[in-house]
Amino acid sequence: MGKILSDIEIAQQTEMKNIEEVAEKLHLTRKEIELYGNYKAKIDPALIPQRENQAKVVLVTAITPTPAGEGKTTTVVGLGDAMNQIGKSSIVALREPSLGPVFGVKGGAAGGGYAQVVPMEDINLHFTGDFHAIGAANNLLAALIDNHIYQGNALDIDVKRITWKRCVDMNDRQLRTIIGGLGVRTNGVPREDGYEITVASEIMAVLCLAEDLHDLKEKLGEMIIGYTHQNEPVTAHDLEAEGAMAALLKEAMKPNLVQTLEHNPAIIHGGPFANIAHGCNSVIATKTAMNLADYVITEAGFGADLGAEKFIDIKCRKAGIAPSALVLVATVRALKMHGGLDKKELGQKDLVALEKGLPNLLKHIENAQEVYGLPTVVAINKFPTDDPEELQLIEDKCQELGVNVVLSDVWGKGGQGGVALAEEVVRLCDEHTGGLSFVYEDEASITEKINAVVQKVYGGRQVNLSKIAKREIAKLEKLGFGHLPICMAKTQYSFSDDPKLLGRPTDFDVDVQNVKVSAGAGFIVVYTGTVMTMPGLPKVPAANHIDVTDEGTITGLF
Amino acid sequence: MGKILSDIEIAQQTEMKNIEEVAEKLHLTRKEIELYGNYKAKIDPALIPQRENQAKVVLVTAITPTPAGEGKTTTVVGLGDAMNQIGKSSIVALREPSLGPVFGVKGGAAGGGYAQVVPMEDINLHFTGDFHAIGAANNLLAALIDNHIYQGNALDIDVKRITWKRCVDMNDRQLRTIIGGLGVRTNGVPREDGYEITVASEIMAVLCLAEDLHDLKEKLGEMIIGYTHQNEPVTAHDLEAEGAMAALLKEAMKPNLVQTLEHNPAIIHGGPFANIAHGCNSVIATKTAMNLADYVITEAGFGADLGAEKFIDIKCRKAGIAPSALVLVATVRALKMHGGLDKKELGQKDLVALEKGLPNLLKHIENAQEVYGLPTVVAINKFPTDDPEELQLIEDKCQELGVNVVLSDVWGKGGQGGVALAEEVVRLCDEHTGGLSFVYEDEASITEKINAVVQKVYGGRQVNLSKIAKREIAKLEKLGFGHLPICMAKTQYSFSDDPKLLGRPTDFDVDVQNVKVSAGAGFIVVYTGTVMTMPGLPKVPAANHIDVTDEGTITGLF
Repeated sequence: MGKILSDIEIAQQTEMKNIEEVAEKLHLTRKEIELYGNYKAKIDPALIPQRENQAKVVLVTAITPTPAGEGKTTTVVGLGDAMNQIGKSSIVALREPSLGPVFGVKGGAAGGGYAQVVPMEDINLHFTGDFHAIGAANNLLAALIDNHIYQGNALDIDVKRITWKRCVDMNDRQLRTIIGGLGVRTNGVPREDGYEITVASEIMAVLCLAEDLHDLKEKLGEMIIGYTHQNEPVTAHDLEAEGAMAALLKEAMKPNLVQTLEHNPAIIHGGPFANIAHGCNSVIATKTAMNLADYVITEAGFGADLGAEKFIDIKCRKAGIAPSALVLVATVRALKMHGGLDKKELGQKDLVALEKGLPNLLKHIENAQEVYGLPTVVAINKFPTDDPEELQLIEDKCQELGVNVVLSDVWGKGGQGGVALAEEVVRLCDEHTGGLSFVYEDEASITEKINAVVQKVYGGRQVNLSKIAKREIAKLEKLGFGHLPICMAKTQYSFSDDPKLLGRPTDFDVDVQNVKVSAGAGFIVVYTGTVMTMPGLPKVPAANHIDVTDEGTITGLF
Repeated sequence: MGKILSDIEIAQQTEMKNIEEVAEKLHLTRKEIELYGNYKAKIDPALIPQRENQAKVVLVTAITPTPAGEGKTTTVVGLGDAMNQIGKSSIVALREPSLGPVFGVKGGAAGGGYAQVVPMEDINLHFTGDFHAIGAANNLLAALIDNHIYQGNALDIDVKRITWKRCVDMNDRQLRTIIGGLGVRTNGVPREDGYEITVASEIMAVLCLAEDLHDLKEKLGEMIIGYTHQNEPVTAHDLEAEGAMAALLKEAMKPNLVQTLEHNPAIIHGGPFANIAHGCNSVIATKTAMNLADYVITEAGFGADLGAEKFIDIKCRKAGIAPSALVLVATVRALKMHGGLDKKELGQKDLVALEKGLPNLLKHIENAQEVYGLPTVVAINKFPTDDPEELQLIEDKCQELGVNVVLSDVWGKGGQGGVALAEEVVRLCDEHTGGLSFVYEDEASITEKINAVVQKVYGGRQVNLSKIAKREIAKLEKLGFGHLPICMAKTQYSFSDDPKLLGRPTDFDVDVQNVKVSAGAGFIVVYTGTVMTMPGLPKVPAANHIDVTDEGTITGLF
């Protein structure tokens, strides 16, 4: 057996097909795509005819994440290849990775092993420039705000209540809190300010929920940038900013086409945060994929309590999309962590820990079936340390809920390792008679919506609102935002708001500290704690080991 | 006569050719270019064979700029088209415009009238992402600096003497001076900081002077980011940052191919500031163009005292390029402003003012001929108000120096309006026997170099160094930077350092306040005053009128 190759080595030793060839698989002609180099393209959705027969959408989500990892993106990519192997016309629809974290500890986000999308270096770095465009639009609006104040502040913006932040696609803790406008009078008006990483910009969420350029511009205009001294919201439209922002985002609105290692088409577009935003790829990309293939395999951020909930209650609700099946990714290792094992102990067989951790998976299955009404399959991402008895235990418990468990080895074998999963997915889609239930209705009050998610999805008792949260909810409902869906900003490491409560916690309340409207994106962010929207770099940043050879080959990305 | 079309209207009503067709004119096959959409491409210089017969380089420069405008870029584009019209294989090699100023007052920078490069919206907005890549590399280095300090500051960096700034491609005065690292301990270490516009980043200058990826990485590593408490320089290499930065810049190093309105090839690449940097397009683009055509028409920022001087003393010296001819662009209107007329009075014939302003042009001619030894032609950019007697006066005065004057109407007529200019350029190139003189030699001291530029190029008496400048010069020479060329940061509005001294001032000294090394780019910036490296937005920003239609057509760009 040779040495185990790293993701980038596997990716770089694969000879990619020209992206035009990949596009041909979707019956896309050269005129319907715009090339970005030889292996990336943008698809203009306006040029794609609408299909009559709706494609089936398959949502890949996961158990509550642990440091053991689950391999959600890897499963999406491998499942897509497997679907193609069994002769099903299929596209994977993924999120774009953020540039900043590549230089920190995280590494890339384009799948792994033999289930990757390529060119992984491009996808992880600038890709087709979408995030740079979002950053430019975000910072143009910021510059227009401060310029407006500097030039006389005709809108009477309260500099103490500007909610719009600047952004950069870099892990830069130094910029979390700054004071700008210092120095001479012509340097602007001093005020406290701060930066978020680009994916946290509301513009990212807006772009991912907009149906087209017209809708994009409208949503951009509705974004609230702060409040006047009379506490009235000030929007981007008030600053006449949405036209120029939309001009900057024109190309970024077009979905990107790349390929898997098996040369199957993959659409990668948009990547909003999964806490302060909804954590799914763009509506425009999902709908474009639905017009190009029979099956669209997509994913949502974090575990199913956050990702699947928001996918359904925000994205599907707004876009009129309904998934046909749900894939729940888990690993034996991660389930044992939920059962109390330490990361160092995961190599050993431990049926007790596994049984103790399994309720996490089972609660996610229950949610899928009973809350959303979706047929579900569990995909166990295979590890060498998995024991047959452990796998049998998972299978038995899931069968009690009427759900099949499939072992997936797409990391090691690519699409071939996911054929059984693909076949089960097809079966579920065929059997699904349609219909999708939301956790709450539009008309419910904001507090009712939060309680519905806490009780139905998280399995908690109720929500406790802080004084500030109560006041803000009242304000938002008075301003007419009560009908919007909610977007929970909660730890991804537990069903509860306490990251230490693993497995399937019960008898817990969820504390809400604050709520904030994202009026452009069209949801209300519910903060159960403080959310870090600007990461930092570690002691030894990955940047120190990233390099490029004289011939242009990038090394050290992982 | 119909209504006069705006630049963007002219650009948008032109049917562009597919960039592959444009590339074919250069005998570039599909394999040697990477498409970015249908009308932009990147050229990989590694794939282009080196030519044996050196192409002729023509530098287009201008008189000292006035608010009346000269039309340098327009002349370059029109001359390129004219060269092609008279059957000469020719490429124009321009700078990329900066994004930020598009939203301010400046508008675009892709030529004008019927002498433009297209697609002008793309070129003026994100283009192929080069500037975003430079911004990302710049801000990665900044994040690595502050992370290094936060993680223990092993290099003993003095936070009061960090010279590296963050950057954004936006006109945002609010960011000129900031304090970062505020808030809780984990938000970094508080220190004063500031932003520059992306084109002012030293990385821009480095990218424009690097010969290839290897050279780029070396230069990036040599950039000084600040000083230790022991006053030793700290470089990007000390922070192990150059590999990741080079990885980010890999694609940005490849020159961009677009077309003129007449479908002739244009290479647009790089765009450093013309005061704190050298203000020319990239060496790699110029050399690529030289391998693809017989004539390369290029330009340099501001008037010839800054642009041509730096083009020759920095870019040509470092890259081993020697121009064959120099085009000096002037307008009758601007010369009358140099003669004392107000902008409102330029419509009237005024031979007295013209004669008074002409010495500005004549001094630039003298410099071209006597200092650099380059054959020169004066291109008068035609305006409707120009009077035949005025034109005759210019011609007579220039003839006394042996230089022909050609009327150019490329703005109104495209290449056809520049045929006479093209023919004169070809004649000058044919007659030029080669050779190029620098203003100073590498071995001269920094003070001698400054004096050489002041006396020979500006026509001043001498330089007066401030105390700080003297101390810094001593420090830089001790650190071993004495052999570098100098880069004058001086007002572009006068030969002198006083923007009010128009025409051809004499008997003036130049005051130097400070000097600073750009160790990566490899030059010493000489500050005759404070240079604004972060512009602001005006009372009514152009952004307010920029828009995009539902179909994706951008409007309001000018």
